[in-house]
Amino acid sequence: PIYTIWAANTNLGKTLISAGIASSVLESQNPSQFHYIKPVQTGFPSDSDSLFVFNRVCDLFLRRRAEFSLVASNHVVKVSDAAAKEVNGDYEERKVGGVMGFGEKRLICRTLCAWNEAVSPHLAVEREGGGVEDEELLEMVEKCLWMGVEGEEKSECWSLIETAGGVASPGPSGTLQCDLYRPFRIPAVLVGDGRLGGISGTISAYETLKLRGYDVVAVVLENHGLANDGSLLSYLQNSLPVLVLPPVPQDLSDDLMEWFDESHDVFASLKQIMLSAFSERVKRLHDLQKKAGDILWWPFTQHQFVPKEKVTVIDSRCGENFAVHKADNGDVMTQQFDACASWWTQGPSASLQIELARDMGYAAARYGHVMFPENVYEPALECAELLLEGVGKGWASRTFFSDNGSTATEVALKMAFRKFLHDNEAIVDISDQNAEKSIEFRVLALKGSYHGDTLGAMEAQAPSSFTGFLQQPWYIGRGLFVDPPTLYMQCGKWNIQLPDELSEGHQQEDLIIHGAGGMYMIDPLFQRILVRECQRRKIPVIFDEVFTGFWRLGVESAAELLHCTPDIACYAKLLTGGIIPLAVTLATEAVFDTFMSDSKLKALLHGHSYSAHAMGCTAAAKSIKNYKDEKKNPNLTPDGRALKEIWDAELVNKISMHPQIKRLMVLGTVFAVELQTNGSNAGYASTIATSILQKLREDGIYARPLGNVIYLMCGPYSSPTTCSQLLVKLYHRIDEFHKSNSSSGL
Amino acid sequence: PIYTIWAANTNLGKTLISAGIASSVLESQNPSQFHYIKPVQTGFPSDSDSLFVFNRVCDLFLRRRAEFSLVASNHVVKVSDAAAKEVNGDYEERKVGGVMGFGEKRLICRTLCAWNEAVSPHLAVEREGGGVEDEELLEMVEKCLWMGVEGEEKSECWSLIETAGGVASPGPSGTLQCDLYRPFRIPAVLVGDGRLGGISGTISAYETLKLRGYDVVAVVLENHGLANDGSLLSYLQNSLPVLVLPPVPQDLSDDLMEWFDESHDVFASLKQIMLSAFSERVKRLHDLQKKAGDILWWPFTQHQFVPKEKVTVIDSRCGENFAVHKADNGDVMTQQFDACASWWTQGPSASLQIELARDMGYAAARYGHVMFPENVYEPALECAELLLEGVGKGWASRTFFSDNGSTATEVALKMAFRKFLHDNEAIVDISDQNAEKSIEFRVLALKGSYHGDTLGAMEAQAPSSFTGFLQQPWYIGRGLFVDPPTLYMQCGKWNIQLPDELSEGHQQEDLIIHGAGGMYMIDPLFQRILVRECQRRKIPVIFDEVFTGFWRLGVESAAELLHCTPDIACYAKLLTGGIIPLAVTLATEAVFDTFMSDSKLKALLHGHSYSAHAMGCTAAAKSIKNYKDEKKNPNLTPDGRALKEIWDAELVNKISMHPQIKRLMVLGTVFAVELQTNGSNAGYASTIATSILQKLREDGIYARPLGNVIYLMCGPYSSPTTCSQLLVKLYHRIDEFHKSNSSSGL
Repeated sequence: PIYTIWAANTNLGKTLISAGIASSVLESQNPSQFHYIKPVQTGFPSDSDSLFVFNRVCDLFLRRRAEFSLVASNHVVKVSDAAAKEVNGDYEERKVGGVMGFGEKRLICRTLCAWNEAVSPHLAVEREGGGVEDEELLEMVEKCLWMGVEGEEKSECWSLIETAGGVASPGPSGTLQCDLYRPFRIPAVLVGDGRLGGISGTISAYETLKLRGYDVVAVVLENHGLANDGSLLSYLQNSLPVLVLPPVPQDLSDDLMEWFDESHDVFASLKQIMLSAFSERVKRLHDLQKKAGDILWWPFTQHQFVPKEKVTVIDSRCGENFAVHKADNGDVMTQQFDACASWWTQGPSASLQIELARDMGYAAARYGHVMFPENVYEPALECAELLLEGVGKGWASRTFFSDNGSTATEVALKMAFRKFLHDNEAIVDISDQNAEKSIEFRVLALKGSYHGDTLGAMEAQAPSSFTGFLQQPWYIGRGLFVDPPTLYMQCGKWNIQLPDELSEGHQQEDLIIHGAGGMYMIDPLFQRILVRECQRRKIPVIFDEVFTGFWRLGVESAAELLHCTPDIACYAKLLTGGIIPLAVTLATEAVFDTFMSDSKLKALLHGHSYSAHAMGCTAAAKSIKNYKDEKKNPNLTPDGRALKEIWDAELVNKISMHPQIKRLMVLGTVFAVELQTNGSNAGYASTIATSILQKLREDGIYARPLGNVIYLMCGPYSSPTTCSQLLVKLYHRIDEFHKSNSSSGL
Repeated sequence: PIYTIWAANTNLGKTLISAGIASSVLESQNPSQFHYIKPVQTGFPSDSDSLFVFNRVCDLFLRRRAEFSLVASNHVVKVSDAAAKEVNGDYEERKVGGVMGFGEKRLICRTLCAWNEAVSPHLAVEREGGGVEDEELLEMVEKCLWMGVEGEEKSECWSLIETAGGVASPGPSGTLQCDLYRPFRIPAVLVGDGRLGGISGTISAYETLKLRGYDVVAVVLENHGLANDGSLLSYLQNSLPVLVLPPVPQDLSDDLMEWFDESHDVFASLKQIMLSAFSERVKRLHDLQKKAGDILWWPFTQHQFVPKEKVTVIDSRCGENFAVHKADNGDVMTQQFDACASWWTQGPSASLQIELARDMGYAAARYGHVMFPENVYEPALECAELLLEGVGKGWASRTFFSDNGSTATEVALKMAFRKFLHDNEAIVDISDQNAEKSIEFRVLALKGSYHGDTLGAMEAQAPSSFTGFLQQPWYIGRGLFVDPPTLYMQCGKWNIQLPDELSEGHQQEDLIIHGAGGMYMIDPLFQRILVRECQRRKIPVIFDEVFTGFWRLGVESAAELLHCTPDIACYAKLLTGGIIPLAVTLATEAVFDTFMSDSKLKALLHGHSYSAHAMGCTAAAKSIKNYKDEKKNPNLTPDGRALKEIWDAELVNKISMHPQIKRLMVLGTVFAVELQTNGSNAGYASTIATSILQKLREDGIYARPLGNVIYLMCGPYSSPTTCSQLLVKLYHRIDEFHKSNSSSGL
């Protein structure tokens, strides 16, 4: 079991609780070792929590004449210069007690970083130096967690990390500790406050932990005769145990041995609670894998291909990384970079994720569900304004909300139909009763594009694996589908591939065709000509920016790359930072006007229960602003109009030269390679990429195949360094695959 | 301006700040009166915050030789017996200072409820009685807020409510104060903590307020030389001002006059911040109304019918009530009962809303966006399990997630098509290349039903206002549409209305037909026969439970009322408590099996980016459990299988007798009346109900029309008392309408 101990603002020391837990664990039969880790200590060396735990647990072992002997150590790893002056050594060991033949227990106490002044760590760093970056500190902690644990049963090794100050006290870098330790998401014990006012402080500290995605397994507090535990249990609806310790003697000379004796049973319960919570957690994670295949029905998934052991158990995400539970590897969590950007929707950095979480709590508490038609509330209007000033700038003036890209497309089509009728009244007389029957609307769309799964959206895509009779017997394919020229890189050079035939038309611009077994870049010039020609002919143009919108291609709107604007456009996916479903269809005022009438029946009679829901609009407003805030997004170019190059040009070049690579595409946050296949194993049903992707998961990269195409997709905040690491690993795995395939071909 | 002053756990008294604000406000030119309200005081009378404010402000007026004179009063409204023993009187008044001709200011201090012992209010009540219910306390506060304010400019009257203890300290009833005062959602000033550990306590308190939907306008703390304000500003990203007061003298005999002098400029800034925030808030609410009609595109709304002044500005919701901002009525907020249940999705009580808010923060922080296909995470599995044990019990074994009712229906259709093909292989040979062309799938559906706005879902509804050429030119209407027998109440008696023709079929069961201009109850027996006949003929049956699911009709699933089960069913709306979009399509294992194959192309190739998103599944799991928890839902019958009668039978009867009522329907949480019309003004486009609904808004009821049908829809937790009030008001307004129409007809 691994736990972190946190405190509300309280006079009850976390360290007392740590010592109590440690001695209770080490006194019991099974556990063989206990690691106590104090990553950050100020007021050192006069205050040293690890020394306190070390001494008290040894004393208790002696006092209680334990049958096991105890080998305890205390180690100080890194000390500021000011603190170092007062320190004599950095390691101490004691062996105490024990009856012959009963074996040995180990207590390993460590202070990782220490400063002299008894102030908040960030202030101590400011005043006496010795700063440590968040990542460095986390690496130090992680090293301790697994040190000497090899070969031991997980339930027999305990680690306890004690934080400094309150839950939201700053760490050495200034990052709040609740944010700092979040990547580990270790279950928590919360030391609450038994004093007057302590109910409030304890509840608030608990909520701060929950707002970071932590699980709290128990609350412990000191009895001050105010029955604070009752109020806390009521707040927690008995979902957590609240333990009460006897009052702590105020006399500083008291060695607390009697208090520990009095508290013995409470600590024994606490230990038991922690142990059960640990087992239940592991069991739950195991069960998830076992049950998932039995009751879930995954989208776009042939269940026969997913045996139980291949199901990925995701415990949590922090920024770009999933924490994946690996049952086969001793129940550890591994971090995997989400390289498919969660079906192309993932946006936030770790800190934006936490901000969004707080905003989601706020929006739900403030608004719950609010009706939208004929009403207005702040998030809906703010979101609409940001869209019109951003992706819709210069052309759009109306915002229609729906739930996903597919519905946004259906709405767009309905708008386009009406606009066409209006603009072409001369040729379409709808007052004629028979006119309806004789008009057949068709869209002009690009072959290979994909605009959603609902029937209306599907009708706007060319026949494909997704539209066949077995999938969608109602599909007709109501379009003229154009095969566009595409761009790709091959052996370090950009090429253009011309289609066999070229025709003209009006609808559905994707800068990248995706979905149909690949990701290809369509010639922007071709698209621009198409758009302008349609608009000249009074054919309304829809941009499907569900995938391309919000920096996916390195600019806020792909329209910027085409140098032309649509009449209608659809957005979803990155719109909310990937946190919550929401979609919008933007339109020009001219489109909107064609629905104005003195009859309700001419209004756009389309809507969803959650239209412009407050949480979605709140998330969208925050995300849209964050993506283009140069203080928050280090990837922005100085003028703030585009993302810098994220994928290292040299590495990209090198990959494009590899004989296993047929062609390659890179733009904005997207990098994709098409693998050479031997003929039949190409397209959406291809399985050739699967083995490479399995290997990449071992490298900590979670990617998904699109037939014989492998793509890596990062977020608007992803660092070029991280992306280079992805490319290096990918190159390595492709090369490995190529070599083993070539050799087996011999 | 009205504010509430809250505190993190801190030694800095909120009352000091209150006194500072009060004197700063009263010293300035414009404001004429200041109300200080202390709703809950313990340790009384030796502690009396209102007396402190009263005395200090008077003293400061004298000391500063203010030109205005001050008439100050202190009033104690309700005192526990134990406290009463020590009190001499409950009212005191002082008049101080002033130069002739400069006029008078008023300071009105009030303690509303006081207890003797200096403990948390809920403990004081336990120990010395004098309990006060939340609603009673809120009424007392509300009365004070508006007392003596008539005719005054809003910006010149100030009210400040000072809470007791910390943000989450219990009030007299045990309800946490942050929850207790939530219906008012008054902007907050937070007193933070400048001591060691104070950063954490202040941040946590701030987050507790945000998690209740409060807006904080400023943080104030005492300088302890630790620069806590810097860390707080960094956390707040400078979105809020953090003000620092000089250290408060610890000497209890100090009258603090010098400290107030030193703090003068800080309080002046704070007052200015509070004033600006107030004006900005009012301006923002005004702007919302002004801008909404310009840039939003509302669903199902003819914009020409919604002039600016008819736009409803919703500031927030708490449980079943919207807080609506009324600009025309002196910028007040009024509460309106959400009687359309927010397009039939609203579920939570006020306390469930806050729980859901915390869960939403947690889920976003823990998961952000996670990939679903081939993966599993706790909320997705828990939600699926609860569905299969609940609405899917006894028949369903697979859960497919999507975003809304419309997509859930499209998924259901795809499932049904495949199942039909599989079950009828003998008649459908799809290996035959030409078979596809010759098979034309049609659904059997009920006339007047509505299953969503996307094309596939629309194809399953009979021709209607929504499917016409102007709305959806691609609509064909791929069904056999049956006109079912319906049930309704008329003049106190239930009747059955038989359709002109009766035919047989297989698909889309709504217990209530909604959408098409009305809400009628369809004969359950008819539906059961239809279902059984279809299943006998191997025609898969889909239940559209998007509207009816989760207690809408008084039972968890409407299938319980039909006494038969489907092969596939769709759920959305109340699924998540109305907090966040999510939909599911449940299916039997037999349906699922028809997608198993060794080819990916035979899998169900349908999915949305947000499939089974963690926040949605978390909200659904919590809501499903809450609805049927008898400890939480007082409307459940003792066996927990149904809701008790919510609508008073006698009142319903009376309404059905009214000559303006054509017929009436009542079931579960739904009550609907069809108004008598004079022929032409019926159906979806009818406007007859509009004037009645406008009147109901003045009564605090937010309802929406469905043509000539008025419906009231409450949530699973709504109290029968509240619902009776709705019925009484409705009856009154219908009667009023009837009389004015009859007389105008004379």
